[in-house]
Amino acid sequence: MIGHGFMGAAHSQGWRVAPRFFDLPLAPAMQVVVGRDAAASAAAAERWGWAESATDWREVIARDDIDLIDIVTPGDTHAEIAIAALEAGKHVLCEKPLANTVEEAEAMAATAATAAERGVVSMVGFTYRRVPAVAFARRLVAEGRLGDIRQVRAEYLQDWLMDAEAPLTWRMKKEHAGSGALGDIGAHAIDLAEHITGQRVAKVSGIIETIVAERPVLAAGSGLSGTAGSDRGTVTVDDLALFTGRLTSGALASFEASRFRTGRKNALRIEISGALGALSFDLERLNELDYYDATQPADEQGFRRILVTEPGHPYVSAWWPTGHMLGYEHGFSHQVRDLVAAVADGTQPEPSFADGLHVQRVLGAVEQSSSAGGTWVTTAG
Amino acid sequence: MIGHGFMGAAHSQGWRVAPRFFDLPLAPAMQVVVGRDAAASAAAAERWGWAESATDWREVIARDDIDLIDIVTPGDTHAEIAIAALEAGKHVLCEKPLANTVEEAEAMAATAATAAERGVVSMVGFTYRRVPAVAFARRLVAEGRLGDIRQVRAEYLQDWLMDAEAPLTWRMKKEHAGSGALGDIGAHAIDLAEHITGQRVAKVSGIIETIVAERPVLAAGSGLSGTAGSDRGTVTVDDLALFTGRLTSGALASFEASRFRTGRKNALRIEISGALGALSFDLERLNELDYYDATQPADEQGFRRILVTEPGHPYVSAWWPTGHMLGYEHGFSHQVRDLVAAVADGTQPEPSFADGLHVQRVLGAVEQSSSAGGTWVTTAG
Amino acid sequence: MIGHGFMGAAHSQGWRVAPRFFDLPLAPAMQVVVGRDAAASAAAAERWGWAESATDWREVIARDDIDLIDIVTPGDTHAEIAIAALEAGKHVLCEKPLANTVEEAEAMAATAATAAERGVVSMVGFTYRRVPAVAFARRLVAEGRLGDIRQVRAEYLQDWLMDAEAPLTWRMKKEHAGSGALGDIGAHAIDLAEHITGQRVAKVSGIIETIVAERPVLAAGSGLSGTAGSDRGTVTVDDLALFTGRLTSGALASFEASRFRTGRKNALRIEISGALGALSFDLERLNELDYYDATQPADEQGFRRILVTEPGHPYVSAWWPTGHMLGYEHGFSHQVRDLVAAVADGTQPEPSFADGLHVQRVLGAVEQSSSAGGTWVTTAG
Amino acid sequence: MIGHGFMGAAHSQGWRVAPRFFDLPLAPAMQVVVGRDAAASAAAAERWGWAESATDWREVIARDDIDLIDIVTPGDTHAEIAIAALEAGKHVLCEKPLANTVEEAEAMAATAATAAERGVVSMVGFTYRRVPAVAFARRLVAEGRLGDIRQVRAEYLQDWLMDAEAPLTWRMKKEHAGSGALGDIGAHAIDLAEHITGQRVAKVSGIIETIVAERPVLAAGSGLSGTAGSDRGTVTVDDLALFTGRLTSGALASFEASRFRTGRKNALRIEISGALGALSFDLERLNELDYYDATQPADEQGFRRILVTEPGHPYVSAWWPTGHMLGYEHGFSHQVRDLVAAVADGTQPEPSFADGLHVQRVLGAVEQSSSAGGTWVTTAG
Repeated sequence: MIGHGFMGAAHSQGWRVAPRFFDLPLAPAMQVVVGRDAAASAAAAERWGWAESATDWREVIARDDIDLIDIVTPGDTHAEIAIAALEAGKHVLCEKPLANTVEEAEAMAATAATAAERGVVSMVGFTYRRVPAVAFARRLVAEGRLGDIRQVRAEYLQDWLMDAEAPLTWRMKKEHAGSGALGDIGAHAIDLAEHITGQRVAKVSGIIETIVAERPVLAAGSGLSGTAGSDRGTVTVDDLALFTGRLTSGALASFEASRFRTGRKNALRIEISGALGALSFDLERLNELDYYDATQPADEQGFRRILVTEPGHPYVSAWWPTGHMLGYEHGFSHQVRDLVAAVADGTQPEPSFADGLHVQRVLGAVEQSSSAGGTWVTTAG
Repeated sequence: MIGHGFMGAAHSQGWRVAPRFFDLPLAPAMQVVVGRDAAASAAAAERWGWAESATDWREVIARDDIDLIDIVTPGDTHAEIAIAALEAGKHVLCEKPLANTVEEAEAMAATAATAAERGVVSMVGFTYRRVPAVAFARRLVAEGRLGDIRQVRAEYLQDWLMDAEAPLTWRMKKEHAGSGALGDIGAHAIDLAEHITGQRVAKVSGIIETIVAERPVLAAGSGLSGTAGSDRGTVTVDDLALFTGRLTSGALASFEASRFRTGRKNALRIEISGALGALSFDLERLNELDYYDATQPADEQGFRRILVTEPGHPYVSAWWPTGHMLGYEHGFSHQVRDLVAAVADGTQPEPSFADGLHVQRVLGAVEQSSSAGGTWVTTAG
Repeated sequence: MIGHGFMGAAHSQGWRVAPRFFDLPLAPAMQVVVGRDAAASAAAAERWGWAESATDWREVIARDDIDLIDIVTPGDTHAEIAIAALEAGKHVLCEKPLANTVEEAEAMAATAATAAERGVVSMVGFTYRRVPAVAFARRLVAEGRLGDIRQVRAEYLQDWLMDAEAPLTWRMKKEHAGSGALGDIGAHAIDLAEHITGQRVAKVSGIIETIVAERPVLAAGSGLSGTAGSDRGTVTVDDLALFTGRLTSGALASFEASRFRTGRKNALRIEISGALGALSFDLERLNELDYYDATQPADEQGFRRILVTEPGHPYVSAWWPTGHMLGYEHGFSHQVRDLVAAVADGTQPEPSFADGLHVQRVLGAVEQSSSAGGTWVTTAG
Repeated sequence: MIGHGFMGAAHSQGWRVAPRFFDLPLAPAMQVVVGRDAAASAAAAERWGWAESATDWREVIARDDIDLIDIVTPGDTHAEIAIAALEAGKHVLCEKPLANTVEEAEAMAATAATAAERGVVSMVGFTYRRVPAVAFARRLVAEGRLGDIRQVRAEYLQDWLMDAEAPLTWRMKKEHAGSGALGDIGAHAIDLAEHITGQRVAKVSGIIETIVAERPVLAAGSGLSGTAGSDRGTVTVDDLALFTGRLTSGALASFEASRFRTGRKNALRIEISGALGALSFDLERLNELDYYDATQPADEQGFRRILVTEPGHPYVSAWWPTGHMLGYEHGFSHQVRDLVAAVADGTQPEPSFADGLHVQRVLGAVEQSSSAGGTWVTTAG
């Protein structure tokens, strides 16, 4: 595993727990954590249960006893590491967003395609696909239960930047984070909309906005938080993105990604409206899926709150009895399960680097549209 | 109309509005308001749109041009007025509870039964039966959609007495109100449970409790509120009633009536659990009914929030298009509609005085059980 | 009252009921209903309680005993009637949208401004401003409880056109309805966003879309529904509008108006995110307002479901005790109350024709932006 | 760990995960799983990550290298194992209910008290105390935020037995399970009510009921489910318990435990009503706590949905950033954390065996009251 921040903890939990609850065809060994700082990496390895630590990812990639590289570093380093790993014949799990630019993502996807011919597997970490309610939503759409999709609304709402005095972290600098709300959380909304509908966003029109443009520089700390210093610096990423997409079927999807929606903590929400029904999901209530069946008698129609904790629901039978809730991190175990299964089978898992590249293109198109005053921009490569 | 408090306003609104939205077979004329105080009665008649006012209800009952008496006085006067009116051949609508004691209610029901033979109609004002969601719930149960009823939970939760310094009003004195939370709001919970299930509560075990036993006496004011004086008096009714009932089918129903459920303003809630499904209703969201259909595939089951605003729902087609909400007072128009239809048809409407008597017997049995330390008491006459 | 469709029923209810619950400074008399068809007008007058009916609105406007004209006809007739009425010195209440085109609305607003100098009062019927929860939301914003507004989301979601075989009615023809979802329901979302924030939408970027472009022509029926014939016609209005507005303060607001959001019946929703708090409202639960107070300790913050039924809430004390719900039509009584008060005071009520004109300009700008491929269009006159 | 069913999986997950997220003063080693069947125990050890397996719990208790015994067997075996372990000087974590009878529980509590004098630690596994929202609720009550407690409602609603053809498992036989809904889930409701209020249930009045009295015998399977055979057997435990308790402060608490509440999967709900506020919790939405602050202005009061995912909330800072949800199993990690801390400190953790005994006494008193026709029965020892 390259990197060991918040995502490193989540991925480690996935690797540790998945083999206990799922019958995996291969037994993953948590071998080595890589980080720039030797002491921090060693501490992370100790804390999260990896056998060893290292500071040079190139050396780790070169090792024969390493089969899979899990990349959880900031987005600006993804391309270099992933490409090197794939070229070295290592399977790769790369945290989202795939990269910070479309160009990097294109190179990664091309490398992944070539590597795939040699049986090397790659996957991008849009973990929310593997929340049972989301996977179940996709199943219902695929089964035609919603009929033709007429409209999609997808939004990812947080408020953790609403304090104008919260300090500048790497997530607010374009050179590290690539983009702000758009790339960090909007990417999830795009991926979910595409994943559940089975369609692509073909073109977009929208705007991105920095609501608080200057912030105190970071004096100390890392990750999502830190301590403010007395100097001020410029936020170079967006706080808010509002855009409309045209899906491949022709239906419109409207998107929002915001870090300023006061009171919303982690509200990745999607509602799909179809000719025969509708679905509504909110990550703040991730064990539930609201389903509306418009084929029932008019007097009996209503949004149905399904607790997605039945054995028949995706991934659920591995865990607890009906009605026992899963949390945020379970998606990481599901990701490990599907990835390990793909490695064993020699199949390519989803979401692929090509999927990740496409999301990157949508992000890029939104930025372009915003710069061009809202005109429609295609997401074609 | 005898009386003109809060209930007088609600009944007046029913008489005024019902003819506009429903095609009534008879055209009700709002003739005379009766109250002890001449000036207050005249003002009420003016305010609520009655042609005249009077102070002697006996004189009004004696009038040939009066066909129907609507009783909205406190419970301790219901029996005398209703019996006199029925004996005078007048149709009677009597606000709930039917009476303050089982004895009075028995006399009223007997008189109503005799009067019915002469085509005189009587009805007790359990208005919540006529909330569309409640009427729809009853229809679903009657159609067998829930299968055998296994359990009922019915509760009426308010918090308007939670301030221990709120003054003593007539509703807190047994001699006027008959009982407290039990009779005032518990009666609604009982009636709803019986109405929706189509069953009776055959016996009960429970406790009633006065949480705040002393309060400042009322210096001025009336109705639900008023100003506190400096002396203190004793609350002689219950603040809280908790009881279990055995329905005629054998299923258990648990009940609560409380004026001390902090934060609950008007939460008349009922949940019916059956072998094939369940229903859940909350008066604080009175345009909604939650329905659970246990005959659907396990993965697709969930409580379905039905907006009871479709034309096919009871009473709804008379009002607004789908999705336009009704309020508290619409039940009073529905009550007028059904009462006038019954008068025109010569049929006896529901809830009858016999229904009201039965509720009274349940209330009495709860008080008896409470006095007897929780033992089961039959509600049979 | 000119016109007597669904809106005629609602306005009539307002005129009938308001004087019973509010102490009005003037006593409105429901005098005459005007409609093209004599029999239908007479029936409407009878049904809705007007003293007489007529077929020529010009004659009615000319009458000395008529002080106020209430216009509830389709939008294409508003301008002619309202201008004539105002010029004749009659007070005017005009149902929204003010007109079908910006040009008409400009003429109306100009006439209203001139008439105002002579003490003639005009008002446009954005009734939802007078839902107590909405009026309370505006109060909280005006008191600074939300701090600077950072973002607004306003949407009006319905699904009554989701059946592709529902027939073409006048609401789907541009020549009568002016626009589709945008003007019919989007106008409410715009007005609410402006009303609650106290700001204007200064420019917009967006798209309007017709999802089902051909429908069976109407064989019989009127209003919101009707029977389908065998021929097909073209829908000339939008089914869906998605747009972003820049408020005068600089904050972004995103809007949606749709008649294809499966399962949403009347979901006029608005969420305001500010530096100190947030508000969230949904017309499907119109007695509730969700309020988030970000000035409280972090551990205790949460969206608070306020039942807007307290005596201190706007309009509520006139009605029922705490916890007794109001419905859709109560807004019409509140509108009558405020209008009559303005007439008595000689002040101009809100929303003014100028407010209505501004909404019209926003609607026009959205259509322009959509035609121009999403570019930003100013709403300035 | 003695036993390895569903609870064994949950406890194992706690032991495995807690050291990764919490800084434990001691490093627990997952040593040995004990079960009657050697092969099954070995498989469980392998699956859940224990170093070895055994079939004789007495031998394991006798081992010097074992410091702590975790008991997850059915209730009828708890007493013997726990007493032996405590007498052998081992710390004990015992799954709830503490025992199947009051007598056994008394013996266990007495042994635990004696063992405590020698520094041996014991704890009973009412894990739901350690859901962050529950721990936070207790903190709010302890801080006086609710004022005097006036009323409690606690219910645990499930529906997994609603199918009358579901087979008889050990949980439906009194000799193994001790009781049915009452002991299995009602025990949680009692413990939560006592834990959050900091009070005891002093006496009870109630009824227990078997709704489906005969079921097909179990042909194969174990745990919560299994396959039905053709013979029928008698259910000897309750399906439903309804009872009222008098708390030590004098306030009334009403309880329900049911396996027949159609559509409710795991609804452990508690609502506490106090003079200054109220709290409401539902395990089906375990990351949320509804809090009502009655000290705020009347117009601004409302139940506030607090997402209990802030760093200041109990246990939360060890996990993910704000807004990232925890699941069912996290409580087991919290239990491990608190237990290990107690072992290290030499303090006695909560809930103690005395707490478990008290719950057992409440359960016994409910059964007695039910047999005695609803009379009040004290829970004093």
